[in-house]
Amino acid sequence: MDLSAIVADIAAEMADAPDRGRPADYIPPLAAVDPNRFGMAVIEADGTCHLAGDAEESFSIQSVSKVFALTLALGAVGDQLWKRVGREPSGSAFNSIVQLESEHGIPRNPFINAGAIVVADILLGRYEPREALGELLRFVRAAAGEDGIFIDENVAKAEQDTGFRNLALASYMRAFGNLHHDPHVTLGVYFHQCALAMSCRQLALAGRYLAAGGVNPTTGRNVVSAQRARRINALMLTCGHYDGSGEFAFRVGLPGKSGVGGGILAIAPGIASIAVWSPGLNERGNSQLGTVALERLVQRTGWSVFEPR
Amino acid sequence: MDLSAIVADIAAEMADAPDRGRPADYIPPLAAVDPNRFGMAVIEADGTCHLAGDAEESFSIQSVSKVFALTLALGAVGDQLWKRVGREPSGSAFNSIVQLESEHGIPRNPFINAGAIVVADILLGRYEPREALGELLRFVRAAAGEDGIFIDENVAKAEQDTGFRNLALASYMRAFGNLHHDPHVTLGVYFHQCALAMSCRQLALAGRYLAAGGVNPTTGRNVVSAQRARRINALMLTCGHYDGSGEFAFRVGLPGKSGVGGGILAIAPGIASIAVWSPGLNERGNSQLGTVALERLVQRTGWSVFEPR
Amino acid sequence: MDLSAIVADIAAEMADAPDRGRPADYIPPLAAVDPNRFGMAVIEADGTCHLAGDAEESFSIQSVSKVFALTLALGAVGDQLWKRVGREPSGSAFNSIVQLESEHGIPRNPFINAGAIVVADILLGRYEPREALGELLRFVRAAAGEDGIFIDENVAKAEQDTGFRNLALASYMRAFGNLHHDPHVTLGVYFHQCALAMSCRQLALAGRYLAAGGVNPTTGRNVVSAQRARRINALMLTCGHYDGSGEFAFRVGLPGKSGVGGGILAIAPGIASIAVWSPGLNERGNSQLGTVALERLVQRTGWSVFEPR
Amino acid sequence: MDLSAIVADIAAEMADAPDRGRPADYIPPLAAVDPNRFGMAVIEADGTCHLAGDAEESFSIQSVSKVFALTLALGAVGDQLWKRVGREPSGSAFNSIVQLESEHGIPRNPFINAGAIVVADILLGRYEPREALGELLRFVRAAAGEDGIFIDENVAKAEQDTGFRNLALASYMRAFGNLHHDPHVTLGVYFHQCALAMSCRQLALAGRYLAAGGVNPTTGRNVVSAQRARRINALMLTCGHYDGSGEFAFRVGLPGKSGVGGGILAIAPGIASIAVWSPGLNERGNSQLGTVALERLVQRTGWSVFEPR
Repeated sequence: MDLSAIVADIAAEMADAPDRGRPADYIPPLAAVDPNRFGMAVIEADGTCHLAGDAEESFSIQSVSKVFALTLALGAVGDQLWKRVGREPSGSAFNSIVQLESEHGIPRNPFINAGAIVVADILLGRYEPREALGELLRFVRAAAGEDGIFIDENVAKAEQDTGFRNLALASYMRAFGNLHHDPHVTLGVYFHQCALAMSCRQLALAGRYLAAGGVNPTTGRNVVSAQRARRINALMLTCGHYDGSGEFAFRVGLPGKSGVGGGILAIAPGIASIAVWSPGLNERGNSQLGTVALERLVQRTGWSVFEPR
Repeated sequence: MDLSAIVADIAAEMADAPDRGRPADYIPPLAAVDPNRFGMAVIEADGTCHLAGDAEESFSIQSVSKVFALTLALGAVGDQLWKRVGREPSGSAFNSIVQLESEHGIPRNPFINAGAIVVADILLGRYEPREALGELLRFVRAAAGEDGIFIDENVAKAEQDTGFRNLALASYMRAFGNLHHDPHVTLGVYFHQCALAMSCRQLALAGRYLAAGGVNPTTGRNVVSAQRARRINALMLTCGHYDGSGEFAFRVGLPGKSGVGGGILAIAPGIASIAVWSPGLNERGNSQLGTVALERLVQRTGWSVFEPR
Repeated sequence: MDLSAIVADIAAEMADAPDRGRPADYIPPLAAVDPNRFGMAVIEADGTCHLAGDAEESFSIQSVSKVFALTLALGAVGDQLWKRVGREPSGSAFNSIVQLESEHGIPRNPFINAGAIVVADILLGRYEPREALGELLRFVRAAAGEDGIFIDENVAKAEQDTGFRNLALASYMRAFGNLHHDPHVTLGVYFHQCALAMSCRQLALAGRYLAAGGVNPTTGRNVVSAQRARRINALMLTCGHYDGSGEFAFRVGLPGKSGVGGGILAIAPGIASIAVWSPGLNERGNSQLGTVALERLVQRTGWSVFEPR
Repeated sequence: MDLSAIVADIAAEMADAPDRGRPADYIPPLAAVDPNRFGMAVIEADGTCHLAGDAEESFSIQSVSKVFALTLALGAVGDQLWKRVGREPSGSAFNSIVQLESEHGIPRNPFINAGAIVVADILLGRYEPREALGELLRFVRAAAGEDGIFIDENVAKAEQDTGFRNLALASYMRAFGNLHHDPHVTLGVYFHQCALAMSCRQLALAGRYLAAGGVNPTTGRNVVSAQRARRINALMLTCGHYDGSGEFAFRVGLPGKSGVGGGILAIAPGIASIAVWSPGLNERGNSQLGTVALERLVQRTGWSVFEPR
């Protein structure tokens, strides 16, 4: 069966799936999203693009943005970044503050909230707040080769109004000296970054450099080195799904990063960049149908990184 | 450069490495091992075998045995096993008892001590203690196609005399009902399993089924299904190096399982089964030079699972 | 109203109390106790004794025994004891193992299980196991001035059969070097100590030295120094009711030690030694009606240590 | 020896004490205090006042203020307060955020920082911020019968500039819904409350109601009921010295509340209200010499609540 048919079949199966999880409801803009949406975009190494369902509809990518912010921050400060953020799975809920206490304000990895807040703070060591968001937007647009990507101010505003747990994390790391700017300023950048709105198609396009050894296929230029691309993929595999990362590796077997908006970016190195979106979340806070869709895609294509080559 | 030369070069580099880590010293038989030893065995998919250094010398494989015990237990009870053991990285020291308390006696994964003790207990649901060890030995010998693999009674005895932390873990899980046999009996199996003595060559031979989609290349028969082989590899990648699993994935990018005896089994799916051994450990309890050797091997061969295909 | 009438009234009120808590059911001999029992004994400084309800019936004093074992161990090794046990409230469930991990095997105080196990282990540094229990029995009998106090072998046996959580605690402390004997041997002493069977009258008699500045009123001899008696009372007030110690101090305001058998020994320094018993426990594991009875006694007598003198 | 001589002797002994602890240095106004200061004030039930050393010098009472804020808040909302704050010792460092996570934003007691922040938030349910501080000042001045008590704006400002750990605690509790006002507003009240400047004499005067069954001896009016006074004393005994509360009860045996400025208020119910001050802190964050002075006072007077009456 060819890939287009596989993608279409999966989307059709997902349309009828009874158990769709529960959309995030901690801010109104996310709670308002129709739980019946499902989109999928698969972009092969040669640029062939397979879309299905709501693949062209924008959604809030939320934590998927942490992949792009990390790439940008690594470009800005290099491996110095790892002095302030770890590289180990967290082994607990994505918003846990406990580990910060026992590990003196160093978050376990750049994909839990605390780690991503430090990454935002690192960007602020190089850019003014507004400039940092401009750089991030420019980065994502260039990676996707699309200008129609924007930050949803409504979402950012809603996060800022309710984000007391993130304020606690940021203040706590500031108390340990691992935040260098005012927590509110750093969180301003962080909340706007998470409010990036993209479609599955745009997200899969933006992720191509991770599937292509660090190279943007449109421009042929290195976004990051091949080694750094491999390493970001490794982090996505071990830490990309909060405390469900082991489960995702077990079932799907691809580097992936999920967001609370229901999106997942998954990478099949050398083969494809994949984005799925369905707002309902499973008990670990990852897209319920997005995970199922990726599991089926990998079963039918053999793209797992653990598949014999 | 051909693979034999690469392997030989790495072994030569390791022979001179100044920073060799510290061998485990909690039991005399491990403390007595010469820290200058280094061995490496790479067995390609076609059976070609590359050996270097002390690749023929037996050492205590310790926690590497957890891969084989897990395979055997999955064969015995199937996916029922996952009701008693999780599949997530632990996010803390390999012998931590804290997570057991908050997670009601269910260990996070089968590769931390608590999880491996439950796996041993599961085998005891099927076999008498002595029989369970016989099965394990038979399994490993068949996987390796070698009879010269044995259990070092001295090591097992020494573990039993000092293994109070493991007794605490086992008793604690028994209190939660997640151990079905007397802790001392289950630990008897566990300590003997960890006392398996193998050479790098034997270990790499025994790991071939994980590189070959579950098939034992010698017999052509499935040891496990292809899906299960992928999944064991996924667990090795996310959980195989205790609280250094993220770091190992980041630097090496292969499924791997380390042991406190200084051995590591690493799998390049479809390409090779690799075993390294050097007794000195890094601060996470994984072989210092073994990790460096694998990192160099992957750099020179491009075998990382995160490398574009 | 005179004290005899107060005690009788309280016993009458407790006889009709609808909310009696739930008796411990983790071992059959405790589960079999009639939940409608209630006994109370108050022995004044001058020796006047007020009994009510089932004050003459023997019950399993369980953790109340920790007060006597601590007194005996302090007599044996003096303040050296505090190198192996802390003096702070635990701030978590009485059987928590977490704090042991972060505090390297030193239990927080001698009244949580871990601490009492270390106290038993300290006694074993001075006595053979059987001898230690003999000493304890002799101590309690002398303090009470009664020979009819015994150890209930059935209870001790039942504890030993199911005490895996205590085995975990003991093994864990052994791993940290804070247990000097085989965990099973130390637990043997500990389980027998907890199986002491006494009536309220006997228990109140045995506690008189704590109300009398360390002096046994029968013999006129110091059981402990006045300072040590004050300090044991301080520990009972801050740590005597597991994670309900603050609540007990808040409501009752007397040094007290509870046991899972439903007994409580409470001390009004200079005034009285008090024992209550009712098998039903509240959510913190302390006697539901025993606590209520003591609260009423203190309200009607003004015996709280926080009452202006 | 009469009490005046005892107090004078202790002050003389403290003047020469070599081990004075280390003053808090997290804000400049505290770091700038002369570590050689020592003051002591003992006010007997009949009003007799014994002063020694720097008993008339103002210092920052810091957490001692939590006793007065709690009294005020109990007056405002009664026992409803206990729905939002616990009554158990914390069992960990005074600023720990861990327990808040496992206990869903309910701090363990009103004397750890998190608990005192909730108490301030409760006052804000009744008063505007400026008004709340006015009420507190009025309360303390009335309790002491002195108008020369003020809030040190320099100290409050310094706390506000560096109090990120408290901001984390407040934000975290806000995320759990246990803070009803903007964290910055609540902390504004809290930081000003902690910046109360009082002398030992003033502090001992202000504490008299706790020694006198809730009655202000100057006015003869109840500040709180006798029961509530007993209960506040109970909380001071079990929770008043952070994770050194057990130790303080063990050594001193009086209800007491310490502050990071080096002050301690201690209550001998029915006998005396006592304040000591020496800026150097011990490893638990309580005044080193203040604790020693109280220990000696109690040894020489027999005022411990655990002393037979």
